[in-house]
Amino acid sequence: MGHGLPDHDSLVARDARHVLHPWADLSTLGTQESLIIAEAHGIEVADSAGRTYLDAIGGMWCVTVGYGHPELVEAMAAQARKMAYFTPFGDVSSEPAARLAAMLADLTPGDLNRVQFTTGGSTAVESAVRIAHYYFASRGQAAKRHVLSRVNAYHGGTYLTASLSGKSADRTLFQYESDWVHHLESPGYDPDTSPVSAAERLDGLVAGMERAIAGIGAENIACFVAEPILASGGVLVPPPGYHEATLELCRRNDILYVSDEVVTGFGRLGHFFASEAKFGVVPDMIVTAKGLTSGYQPLGAVIVSDRVAESLAANADRDKPVFSNGFTYSGHPVACATAVANIEVMRRDDVCGHVLDVGPYFIRRLRELRSSSIVAAVRGDHLMACVECHVPGEDGPTARNQALARRVDAYCEEAGLLVRPYENLCIMSPPLIITRGEVDRIVDIMADSLARAEHDLRTGAVR
Amino acid sequence: MGHGLPDHDSLVARDARHVLHPWADLSTLGTQESLIIAEAHGIEVADSAGRTYLDAIGGMWCVTVGYGHPELVEAMAAQARKMAYFTPFGDVSSEPAARLAAMLADLTPGDLNRVQFTTGGSTAVESAVRIAHYYFASRGQAAKRHVLSRVNAYHGGTYLTASLSGKSADRTLFQYESDWVHHLESPGYDPDTSPVSAAERLDGLVAGMERAIAGIGAENIACFVAEPILASGGVLVPPPGYHEATLELCRRNDILYVSDEVVTGFGRLGHFFASEAKFGVVPDMIVTAKGLTSGYQPLGAVIVSDRVAESLAANADRDKPVFSNGFTYSGHPVACATAVANIEVMRRDDVCGHVLDVGPYFIRRLRELRSSSIVAAVRGDHLMACVECHVPGEDGPTARNQALARRVDAYCEEAGLLVRPYENLCIMSPPLIITRGEVDRIVDIMADSLARAEHDLRTGAVR
Repeated sequence: MGHGLPDHDSLVARDARHVLHPWADLSTLGTQESLIIAEAHGIEVADSAGRTYLDAIGGMWCVTVGYGHPELVEAMAAQARKMAYFTPFGDVSSEPAARLAAMLADLTPGDLNRVQFTTGGSTAVESAVRIAHYYFASRGQAAKRHVLSRVNAYHGGTYLTASLSGKSADRTLFQYESDWVHHLESPGYDPDTSPVSAAERLDGLVAGMERAIAGIGAENIACFVAEPILASGGVLVPPPGYHEATLELCRRNDILYVSDEVVTGFGRLGHFFASEAKFGVVPDMIVTAKGLTSGYQPLGAVIVSDRVAESLAANADRDKPVFSNGFTYSGHPVACATAVANIEVMRRDDVCGHVLDVGPYFIRRLRELRSSSIVAAVRGDHLMACVECHVPGEDGPTARNQALARRVDAYCEEAGLLVRPYENLCIMSPPLIITRGEVDRIVDIMADSLARAEHDLRTGAVR
Repeated sequence: MGHGLPDHDSLVARDARHVLHPWADLSTLGTQESLIIAEAHGIEVADSAGRTYLDAIGGMWCVTVGYGHPELVEAMAAQARKMAYFTPFGDVSSEPAARLAAMLADLTPGDLNRVQFTTGGSTAVESAVRIAHYYFASRGQAAKRHVLSRVNAYHGGTYLTASLSGKSADRTLFQYESDWVHHLESPGYDPDTSPVSAAERLDGLVAGMERAIAGIGAENIACFVAEPILASGGVLVPPPGYHEATLELCRRNDILYVSDEVVTGFGRLGHFFASEAKFGVVPDMIVTAKGLTSGYQPLGAVIVSDRVAESLAANADRDKPVFSNGFTYSGHPVACATAVANIEVMRRDDVCGHVLDVGPYFIRRLRELRSSSIVAAVRGDHLMACVECHVPGEDGPTARNQALARRVDAYCEEAGLLVRPYENLCIMSPPLIITRGEVDRIVDIMADSLARAEHDLRTGAVR
């Protein structure tokens, strides 16, 4: 690894000329020089110039079993050789889709046993909301179509899922649905920095949700869509009891609870799904993607409770009982075969057990970084975490705080560590196979990068 | 091929219990016995019971170079082994994405040189509409957000793209956007059966579009989204001149023209893209998916004109120039590497040239079936076609006509041929490598199946 690609310059030029990247900086369109990631093995990646990095972001919350895993690659190739694709529409299926659906039903809590496959997280959230719409309309309650989300949530890049997302940084000149999409208060609670107790914070959040439901009218609300821990919004952990309390509010008001476990699922918090195992709730639907295939393939799914699925079937339009929702690539055989192999490897190697061991160590070591004067907070749970940077005395994602965090990122990259920059945060979600020694390496590089940025701040190099 | 799977019964049971299929019949949820496609090579597929079929639907408009192509499988596996995934966000890229973007810019007409990758057709149409929204909002025309589509169009399975779709069969108990999505008249024209001339039909369609634009107000319309030939809506071919005339109307009213070539692209009509080569139009954006990877991988893209892309860059919000649109799996390296191999094989083997030869033969031979009394029409172009069934004297997708078509489908399947049933149509879109001999086999089986269904009708077995 790391010997570089012969056509590095030409790749950078083609990328600049022809690719419109997600979350591109439009002011540099056509002139940006992208980092071309060329190789990846274990928890390391190498760029096209031959430089290697420890990947502390797991691709992007995706990679569970590490890069280049031969069993995943072989499962993918074997399925492609045998049966690369056929329509999943109507009553046609494939071996990998049938097997994976049964495995997911087994991994999810309660009666969540019915799986609709999609192509990723955005399309899985789309399907969850559409299922909620169909559920209520088929029960004669078509007015129940409004959706509750939260400030700082992230749910995807389609018109609807971008509207559900509540990160102000992402609200740009696109159009967003506002007639029937509502954002509750961001529910993060940091005991290190909060002026109020966890119980007070919880009461406030619940009261706010009750007021919102009363204002919109429960008779108009289809579902509540929620990440158990808000991921790209800033690794925001709600106060204890929040998940149970919001589920209880949903039950009381006949609102479906959709848990978006695209990030928190597949071992990142030490469980295949965190909803019940960590937060004590059995939702009506769980959305998954990313870790499902360890990122090796585009795949998402929404797993629906039998109660909801049976209602869809029982109340479907008798003259037109077709479930007209889904995608050409729903249950793609190659993607599903990869996910099956990923689950088999994760089970055999007890990857969740490993995360339960190394995760607390990762958080504990990262929390040592709070001794730096430019660290405002360290938040997270197991293998999802962030370090929030600030100019001492200055709060939030101000221009100066963002510049400071960018400097920390740049020093990390220089030292061979990739973290994910977002506003004034350095976000980390390493592959789940990370060892304690590699955790130490991350923390050492972060500490050094923070020290260099702190020095720059003192000497006036950051403005 | 065709020796069956040992666990056939268990797969069927798992599928019935756990999968919610796209376009499932909800009245049979939990009890349906799916056809499990287990193997696929060349233009044949085999089910889990060991039966083989000639696949006349190409997976679902997807498969171009045939199943089990070793070069595509090897490209996929090699990329997965080398670098299975990394984030495409911001200024991070991969070799396959950069290479594929440059290839697509080369294959598309005019100045369509800027590629946004997605996970399939639905998400690519989503991105196209969102780009149109951003384009106008950034030019100070945020009111230009309405979208024109057409009756019988199909554009996807998300909230927005399902709303753009205009097939009445697909409008069920889901929610649909109607405030800013509008459906023009279905533009199909069949010279065999139409009572009016092509010129009259064209005039009517153009006048209808002019009225719609005047009614909504050009100052409120962002884009027109159109399949060059409406595919799953019934292989509906517009009259000559329609594409130029609608483009001209768009230009005159500053409406962006989005050509949805998910089906018509990648060789199905004998060209990598049909917009200019067949229909004489250079759109503002072209959407592609399906044939892009020969269906082997979930991948879609919208290719945007430099004119539009440069406007996005020039007019982006200066304080927040982030293009907050895209997906975790945009430009997935494994999917892009598969598409690159697919394009290389298609070019080297001149697959488009082959379609230009075998396509007219396919249509000519299919048209012989019009001699059957239960064939209402045969429509299509090159390798997309349909046979419309009817009880003589009865028009359209009536219950009886649909039952008759289902009987034809069932007889085809019994004889080892898979066609795609939709309402009273048998739709066909075989792999592009199909030979004249295989075309003959399709037509022979269709002819026999039609004769058997015709006999059933005469003897009262179809009601």
